[in-house]
Amino acid sequence: MSLPDVLARIDHDLDAATDRLLDLLRIPSISTDPAFKEDCDRAADWLVEDLNSIGIKTTKRPNPGHPMVVGHVDGPADKPHILFYGHYDVQPVDPLNLWHRDPFDPAVEDTAKGRVIRGRGAADDKGQLMTFVEALRAWKAVKGDFPCRMTFFFEGEEESGSPSLVPFMEENADELRADYAMICDTGMFQSKVPSIVTMLRGLMGEEVTITGPDLDLHSGMYGGVSMNPARVLSKVIASLHDDTGRITVPGFYDGVPELPDDIQAQWQGLAFDHDSFLGDVGLSKPAGEQDRMPIEMIWSRPTCEVNGMWSGYTGAGFKTVLPSQAHAKISFRLVGTQDPHVIRDSFRKMVTDMMPEDCEATFHAHGSSQGSVFETTAPAFEDARKALTDEWNVPAAYVGCGGSIPIAGHFQKILDTTPVLIGFGKDDDAIHSPNEKYDLESFHKGIRSWARILDAMT
Amino acid sequence: MSLPDVLARIDHDLDAATDRLLDLLRIPSISTDPAFKEDCDRAADWLVEDLNSIGIKTTKRPNPGHPMVVGHVDGPADKPHILFYGHYDVQPVDPLNLWHRDPFDPAVEDTAKGRVIRGRGAADDKGQLMTFVEALRAWKAVKGDFPCRMTFFFEGEEESGSPSLVPFMEENADELRADYAMICDTGMFQSKVPSIVTMLRGLMGEEVTITGPDLDLHSGMYGGVSMNPARVLSKVIASLHDDTGRITVPGFYDGVPELPDDIQAQWQGLAFDHDSFLGDVGLSKPAGEQDRMPIEMIWSRPTCEVNGMWSGYTGAGFKTVLPSQAHAKISFRLVGTQDPHVIRDSFRKMVTDMMPEDCEATFHAHGSSQGSVFETTAPAFEDARKALTDEWNVPAAYVGCGGSIPIAGHFQKILDTTPVLIGFGKDDDAIHSPNEKYDLESFHKGIRSWARILDAMT
Repeated sequence: MSLPDVLARIDHDLDAATDRLLDLLRIPSISTDPAFKEDCDRAADWLVEDLNSIGIKTTKRPNPGHPMVVGHVDGPADKPHILFYGHYDVQPVDPLNLWHRDPFDPAVEDTAKGRVIRGRGAADDKGQLMTFVEALRAWKAVKGDFPCRMTFFFEGEEESGSPSLVPFMEENADELRADYAMICDTGMFQSKVPSIVTMLRGLMGEEVTITGPDLDLHSGMYGGVSMNPARVLSKVIASLHDDTGRITVPGFYDGVPELPDDIQAQWQGLAFDHDSFLGDVGLSKPAGEQDRMPIEMIWSRPTCEVNGMWSGYTGAGFKTVLPSQAHAKISFRLVGTQDPHVIRDSFRKMVTDMMPEDCEATFHAHGSSQGSVFETTAPAFEDARKALTDEWNVPAAYVGCGGSIPIAGHFQKILDTTPVLIGFGKDDDAIHSPNEKYDLESFHKGIRSWARILDAMT
Repeated sequence: MSLPDVLARIDHDLDAATDRLLDLLRIPSISTDPAFKEDCDRAADWLVEDLNSIGIKTTKRPNPGHPMVVGHVDGPADKPHILFYGHYDVQPVDPLNLWHRDPFDPAVEDTAKGRVIRGRGAADDKGQLMTFVEALRAWKAVKGDFPCRMTFFFEGEEESGSPSLVPFMEENADELRADYAMICDTGMFQSKVPSIVTMLRGLMGEEVTITGPDLDLHSGMYGGVSMNPARVLSKVIASLHDDTGRITVPGFYDGVPELPDDIQAQWQGLAFDHDSFLGDVGLSKPAGEQDRMPIEMIWSRPTCEVNGMWSGYTGAGFKTVLPSQAHAKISFRLVGTQDPHVIRDSFRKMVTDMMPEDCEATFHAHGSSQGSVFETTAPAFEDARKALTDEWNVPAAYVGCGGSIPIAGHFQKILDTTPVLIGFGKDDDAIHSPNEKYDLESFHKGIRSWARILDAMT
């Protein structure tokens, strides 16, 4: 029995595989919101049961946050030990009114661009995670066994900063260590080119609260004489970038490398179509640092973004309140050797120094991770690149990624395991947004891709 | 039967009067939120029934918004025709978690500063409105009749911009026209000095929405290259004041008068204690225009305040979203002959001109009114001032008011009726805030004050 038989089995089993994914998507495993704690647990149970049903010995591993799912399969010592990582938790769904269907009542929909699996988590990351599982299910069904020693490692806190991940990895390093960690949580370059990500941005999140008066005041009685924290917060946010788009936090650019000439040439060769990248979401002009290629802005330059802000009365109608507090969630994407802890301290000092009399800034730290760059010298990379090229009939590329997948750096540093980031997401998947979807093609050819990659590597 | 009998009756009836007020406070008549429409209607019904029970012929008058309550009592032609105005609607109650009791389960509470009636609307304006009603109830009980021709006119949309008020006044001008309109919706200067307000600020409210990308984006994928509307809104808000506290909207100060010397002298004579005015709410320093007296900032200078703003993810945890939209509710307090329509247009042009490529600003108009100044030459003013001085044992004062009570100007312009603004609120009443209260002393001596004023005027 050979690879074509496995691929044929995958094709034959696609409807059933899709139904299994829809079943998993029905579980609202929103990790950041404590109201969905039990649902996260249910999603972990679902995976444990499914992996065991294929013959992968899998258990749910409790920890202070949402549980880990860990499974193992033995294999010969002369073949690589491959770990598969994914996450079963999903982003919140608001604003709910912009969804055209219940985000947790997923379905396959026909669209002008082809068939898609619609629902929260379809692309990020349940659909991607299941590409591994379905590839192995088909492999086992056709060949009666698995191709090599394998570990499955799925977490449920990726969308809320993975607070339990590092302690769990450190405590279970011997059990989790492998030759390669296949991470399926990324996309295809320009939605067409199968891609292996070799550069990731880090992330540092801060929540700042500015307090002025002790209580909400009547703007008629106190307006004009009292400090308004919403105005103070606006000043802070407005000052975080200068007129050229550079971030003004002192020391922010320490450790930000210039792009090496060879990578610059390679990226220029990709002919990134930023017109359609921006045009797809209603934008026309790159808004970042002046004199940078758009692809640099996304892959290799650090950023500072407001992810949320709120103050005062935000309901229907009007309320002439002078708010006591103003809040913002602000995140920084980091590259090179930028140190998230140093930047966090510098940001806090900058904001604190801006406070006028009668205003106080307090801070709440969200997660942080450094940026990463991965060497591609291990043989698995060329094996995978060739397998992807064969499946998609497009030469696969080494690319950067603007998102933050801290786990990749953890595999490298804590487990001495080489991360290999391959995913099948597309730019219009609307991950983290209303109406998230995963192309049926991504799911189908994603499963086939893993079968080819495993065949090439073993 | 004379004034002392009426005052004694008021004292004797205070517990019953308080119970009636608590009953009215239990109705959550939040006018700005459509969810409470029926409750507004119930509050109107409650007043109709109560006024009729005293012998004031009162009906509920439907209109496109919440109903008006209008009642009449006849009287001799040689005495003034006095109208009483108040509003039975209340502000929203959020943030609800800061209330130490259900805002619509009111009660009399003992506090370090004396007994207070606690609940939403206690001071603004149900408690104040009932001071008229209770004074007339006692008068009628003691004297068997009312002192003069009277009209009662209570509305239910004051906290949401009174959209139905002007059309209703215009359609019913002959019915509503009187010699004086007594308006009980203001406070006592420094919480101690009984006051007649002769200067009011106007109000103009705007809601601005800035739209960048068509949908919420992943800040990892699009961060750094896409325009973030939360940043753009922050820039707009940060630019609305210059470093000296002046408002930068072009033409904003057209029509703002300097304070006449005599009023300036009078206000300085009031020895406004801004340390405790600010200290009571946790502030220490006047934050408005440089080189202005704090009392000017509040009474006779125009303002621009952010009453609410929101963008992106505002829930628990963190979401790395790049928001599609950012919103703010912004209001301007107006004085002199500042024209709200001209300022609205100028504000919109200023914001629109600030929009970078790929961002669009849209606007929603909330209500608007000009500032007002009232002459105090009519004899009723000195009658009222003397009556207030007698009741409170403190010389009553003519003062300004930072809030906006557009109805006062409407009485003047539409009905040719002289507005007389007298109220018994205190600075720490927390109107529009959690834990609103009305001092039992304000309620009791407020009722007594109206009996004295009616006695002096008739």
